[in-house]
Amino acid sequence: MRSQANAANDVAVDAARLLSLLRARRLRVHAITNAAAQVFTANLLLAAGAVPSLTHAAAEVESFASSADALLINLGTLDTERREAIPRAMRAARAANRPIVLDPVFVERSPSRLAFARDLLALKPDILRANAAEFSALAKGDASQDARMRFVETQSIALALTGETDVICDAARSVSVSNGDPVMTRVTAMGCAGTALVAAFAALTEDRVAAAASALLVLGVAGEIAAARSQGPGTFQPAFLDALNALDSATLLRLARVS
Amino acid sequence: MRSQANAANDVAVDAARLLSLLRARRLRVHAITNAAAQVFTANLLLAAGAVPSLTHAAAEVESFASSADALLINLGTLDTERREAIPRAMRAARAANRPIVLDPVFVERSPSRLAFARDLLALKPDILRANAAEFSALAKGDASQDARMRFVETQSIALALTGETDVICDAARSVSVSNGDPVMTRVTAMGCAGTALVAAFAALTEDRVAAAASALLVLGVAGEIAAARSQGPGTFQPAFLDALNALDSATLLRLARVS
Amino acid sequence: MRSQANAANDVAVDAARLLSLLRARRLRVHAITNAAAQVFTANLLLAAGAVPSLTHAAAEVESFASSADALLINLGTLDTERREAIPRAMRAARAANRPIVLDPVFVERSPSRLAFARDLLALKPDILRANAAEFSALAKGDASQDARMRFVETQSIALALTGETDVICDAARSVSVSNGDPVMTRVTAMGCAGTALVAAFAALTEDRVAAAASALLVLGVAGEIAAARSQGPGTFQPAFLDALNALDSATLLRLARVS
Repeated sequence: MRSQANAANDVAVDAARLLSLLRARRLRVHAITNAAAQVFTANLLLAAGAVPSLTHAAAEVESFASSADALLINLGTLDTERREAIPRAMRAARAANRPIVLDPVFVERSPSRLAFARDLLALKPDILRANAAEFSALAKGDASQDARMRFVETQSIALALTGETDVICDAARSVSVSNGDPVMTRVTAMGCAGTALVAAFAALTEDRVAAAASALLVLGVAGEIAAARSQGPGTFQPAFLDALNALDSATLLRLARVS
Repeated sequence: MRSQANAANDVAVDAARLLSLLRARRLRVHAITNAAAQVFTANLLLAAGAVPSLTHAAAEVESFASSADALLINLGTLDTERREAIPRAMRAARAANRPIVLDPVFVERSPSRLAFARDLLALKPDILRANAAEFSALAKGDASQDARMRFVETQSIALALTGETDVICDAARSVSVSNGDPVMTRVTAMGCAGTALVAAFAALTEDRVAAAASALLVLGVAGEIAAARSQGPGTFQPAFLDALNALDSATLLRLARVS
Repeated sequence: MRSQANAANDVAVDAARLLSLLRARRLRVHAITNAAAQVFTANLLLAAGAVPSLTHAAAEVESFASSADALLINLGTLDTERREAIPRAMRAARAANRPIVLDPVFVERSPSRLAFARDLLALKPDILRANAAEFSALAKGDASQDARMRFVETQSIALALTGETDVICDAARSVSVSNGDPVMTRVTAMGCAGTALVAAFAALTEDRVAAAASALLVLGVAGEIAAARSQGPGTFQPAFLDALNALDSATLLRLARVS
């Protein structure tokens, strides 16, 4: 049995390896995401080395989803066309054996969105990204550790529960990532856009916990570097894209706070 | 009767107080706004201390509008779904006694948008933000001071007429705010996003003139600070969010140009 | 017959003249463009001196298109409302004798988008902007120089084939622009937004090759200046808008690489 310290280091090593692979392979990520997140999601993916596409037009979403390497579904600004496109895209990605990441943003604010999110779980996304309020709504108010374990087992899913510390788990293991900076909560769509990197990494490894933990680690470390170089939430965002674009393995290993 | 100078100082003191309150209370603002403004609106609200939401999906807009503290309606990129969502959101906000701010952007460019804006006035928004061309279209070509007074009296509304100098009035009084910088006209959605702060402030005071004048003052002062720190319309925008995020009462009082 | 060097200098002189004209006249450009490009397109047009509008609401797109000086059609995120609005806007612009620029982005990824793009060519846009993959899809797999010449002759169109070097041609002549920086491929919608400047310039001259080559030259030179002043794709974007806003004729002539 490996020590905790070794396991933590493994995540950082995984993250460095997956980031290098992503840059080398220029993977395509199709993101159906909310109107506030589309541009930053695309720029984040480009800065990380991936190629984004964003359409949620029902007529073409299957072509895009099945020709991409991974699919991100974010439930923000869930209009009629997105509602129609999302299950289609998920089915197309599933048929093409592409990983799917689901982000049920603000699901606690809208009963119709919550019902829709529950239906989507039946289409078997690989990874769910949620904050405590969103997960609690999905889990019928019970966000305890037991509820989380039941959820990942019942749904055969990996869960990335994001917050001050991110906790990533499936039925077999759990990893915590503590990197990041408070300014990241003052930039719209930071979490939404970051989840697109989870999708990109999920196309590079079958280990879903490693994919999600690695992506969140990369985002947190880039965020810390950018926070140190910027003067507030405005200059943070360009600094973050620069830091993500330039992030190297040594820096990632040095700054990682994983347990 | 108070002097003009005292009244001006009152607005700056109000602005400082409302900004502090906003940061302390983390109010929720729901914004149905145009596609060019969504991201900047969300980032501006976050930098000011509020929590934005943006959906215009008809199925969920009522949940969001009634659980928010204020509602912004902007008529840009007025597609079918926005057209359906806007009256629903306004009725839900009205039923929940939330303030509503209406921004009839580019209403002079589209007869169908103008007709829609007129219908919305019947739903009794609290504050109308318009530039001279937009107000003139709404007021059937007459933008004189008399026409403005008739408009605010007939509609029981406060009017924020934005331009080089912003004039904010209701049936009882009028305030002018002269802060700002020309570069602000070279950044898309600057006015649209700023109007979201008017909505946020309207949730903090029943005095609608004070709410609108305070918000426009905060935006103008942050804009001047950012203009001095940036090299053009590109670097202005992140500098503006930083300045808004860091703005303190002393600076606001010192730089305010209100009459 | 003029020498190549003279022809090249002519393009730079044209570009400087058109940019000055654009700033003086504050032309209106209506852009129906994809969700990732809307904000940057608007900000790029403002930085260049034009006035953008963006609606794709079918009910109002004709008013906007016919009251603008030029129309940009970009096929990204091609949802139901955009599909309905685009031919309407093109017919309204054509009836009002406004230039139309078509950007069939990612047309190689979606058969339904490709079919739609082919239909739009029948509505006679003035200029087609495409990269090699997009043009090849439109030209049924043949992107040879012969195929390009057949295409521009058959369609009576100017073609701006963008890539590391941009090649702009019609049936009569061909110009190459080599300015730009690799970081421009790491910013989403850089090409999409730039094509809006092609539309703006097409409203200032009947010479469609000059319009497209001039716009692409301006973008490339501003991009080089911004790349030198920024630290990555994040800080590049604000630096690019600043550089475009401040670009003067002397710098344009000095840095132009045209043949």
